[in-house]
Amino acid sequence: MSKVHNFSAGPCILPPEVLKEAAEAVVNFDNLNLSLLEISHRSKNFVAVMDEAVALVRELMDVPDNYTPIFIQGGASLGFIISALNMRGKHGKAAYTNTGTWANNAIKEAKQFLNVVEIASSKDANFNYIPKGYTIPSDVDYFHFTSNNTIFGTQVKDMPKTSVPLVCDMSSDILSRKVNVADFDLIYAGAQKNMGPAGATLYIVKNDVFANSQKPIPSYLDLSIHADKESMFNTPPVYSVYVCMLTLRWLKKNGGVSWIEGVNQAKADCIYNEIDRNPLFEGTAAKEDRSNMNACFKLKDEKYQEQFDAIWKAAGVSGIKGHRSVGGYRASMYNALPLESVQVLANCMKELEKNV
Amino acid sequence: MSKVHNFSAGPCILPPEVLKEAAEAVVNFDNLNLSLLEISHRSKNFVAVMDEAVALVRELMDVPDNYTPIFIQGGASLGFIISALNMRGKHGKAAYTNTGTWANNAIKEAKQFLNVVEIASSKDANFNYIPKGYTIPSDVDYFHFTSNNTIFGTQVKDMPKTSVPLVCDMSSDILSRKVNVADFDLIYAGAQKNMGPAGATLYIVKNDVFANSQKPIPSYLDLSIHADKESMFNTPPVYSVYVCMLTLRWLKKNGGVSWIEGVNQAKADCIYNEIDRNPLFEGTAAKEDRSNMNACFKLKDEKYQEQFDAIWKAAGVSGIKGHRSVGGYRASMYNALPLESVQVLANCMKELEKNV
Repeated sequence: MSKVHNFSAGPCILPPEVLKEAAEAVVNFDNLNLSLLEISHRSKNFVAVMDEAVALVRELMDVPDNYTPIFIQGGASLGFIISALNMRGKHGKAAYTNTGTWANNAIKEAKQFLNVVEIASSKDANFNYIPKGYTIPSDVDYFHFTSNNTIFGTQVKDMPKTSVPLVCDMSSDILSRKVNVADFDLIYAGAQKNMGPAGATLYIVKNDVFANSQKPIPSYLDLSIHADKESMFNTPPVYSVYVCMLTLRWLKKNGGVSWIEGVNQAKADCIYNEIDRNPLFEGTAAKEDRSNMNACFKLKDEKYQEQFDAIWKAAGVSGIKGHRSVGGYRASMYNALPLESVQVLANCMKELEKNV
Repeated sequence: MSKVHNFSAGPCILPPEVLKEAAEAVVNFDNLNLSLLEISHRSKNFVAVMDEAVALVRELMDVPDNYTPIFIQGGASLGFIISALNMRGKHGKAAYTNTGTWANNAIKEAKQFLNVVEIASSKDANFNYIPKGYTIPSDVDYFHFTSNNTIFGTQVKDMPKTSVPLVCDMSSDILSRKVNVADFDLIYAGAQKNMGPAGATLYIVKNDVFANSQKPIPSYLDLSIHADKESMFNTPPVYSVYVCMLTLRWLKKNGGVSWIEGVNQAKADCIYNEIDRNPLFEGTAAKEDRSNMNACFKLKDEKYQEQFDAIWKAAGVSGIKGHRSVGGYRASMYNALPLESVQVLANCMKELEKNV
């Protein structure tokens, strides 16, 4: 079968060796002659998986000892609620930046629990840039931002510095670049970009948060309960956590976050250089805010669309249709996407140029 | 490798042909040359999976047209919160029966949102029976019960009839026996017993519920939003839903719920007949309330424990250690467990009798 260059925006490409091992575990896990899907989550075999997944997050992200990584269900959409409920403190007030669809959804959910101040927004330009130079008020329980905006192809390059507790939805660029976890009070991320398949969500919580939350919080939404129970308050998303663990192992084996950060930069350079060089294309995001995960671009003249689509389809490229909010194309280049695939796409763009 | 008789209480045994197909999809799904784990949940291939899973639930459970099946994340523990929030109406009050650990947890969570009346409990006898003859008040928004109690091995045989909206946590016996869905306003169930692997939760909602809920409800917790978005409000637990779909296909192919109800009755008869016949053993649940899913039993004299444990381990039996709240043994006999495995366990009990 021909190779597929999988630029899917998420769920997205995973390393082939991870998928191979993940398939084997569905039939026979740990030589138990049982599937991973049909054993107790309290079995020592699965507890070892969860422990290793958490330990790998700690190691790969250099998580300080006074932080707890937690894997639960619900995606970042439940994370919008969980982050607001657990970070809500004495002020009953939070600051958010609005940098796109997901940031906007985070704001909408938080408004049910706190007074939310939207301190900056790039809505005026269809979210094609990251607002800068804003002031974070001091009388808030926390400041929340989205580190990478998948739909609009923008990414926060310099993490905000603030004296108020810092919360980040890192769903689409966690583990893709070095981050100083100690600067954050809460990081959350759906697994289905750089970490694994859909169905698991990672929270990295500064332990102070557990004591400072305004209780009561319904149990499933209370991060302190999940921390106490070591991500086993209820049945965890067993298979998703397992595949995350395999993907984290893959990342470690290959050189960790500093290695993948370099690979991701090379991929981003490859595609953005071609976007800027090729007279037929243009990027849609502000240059200084371009995402290394999702490159959004357009044909300057839409009359070439059919021709370009035929070229990349013939080359085995998949999943580059842009989101309807932006149009054009979006090349998502998550950790497991090889540089080779980006080169193939760049060559397709060159080929169009030659043909017209 | 020798056959394992998997009596795990959940996540639990799944049909071997389901596991085989589920493993293949991890490497190459639908001949896309891509893994199911790395394609978009909006792709037509995965949308077809979700649609088929929902259609199979409708068909197998004979779900009326004015009900909507929904698959989301979070397990029944999030279901405790979601059911209370979505069923909360003009009374701000709900009635619950307390029949064990999970019913008790459901009550605890609901108390954060409503005035909860515990109208009956079997706590006085370590939950070894199902309370009967209770009166459900008419001034409540709903009545909630747990149809099967995995830990204590009891099961509601006659579903309650009431004029108030009826809500059921059916996590551990859904699809194991015929149920008249039209009698219920909301059914919810974690997948990891009779439906599939951990990570997906099924809600079957009478459409009236969507209009009657007291809004606002945070989006992820609002069943009307998940219904509107056809279980795609956010990224669904792709793989768990897929394996549920395969398991539902397996159930349909073999004869549906009326077929499995017969198989489950035969398995229950096999184990309970041996428990009652064998002078060395005794059941822990009231006879008329014995669960067809989880048979809890004890050695009358614990001095035989080591000998019995050696016998069933040698026979390939796995996962029958009782929950710490009850002790003794628990044989979980979910849909995919073949009668043969129960016969093997019954023979182990006979063998002990012969040997002592």
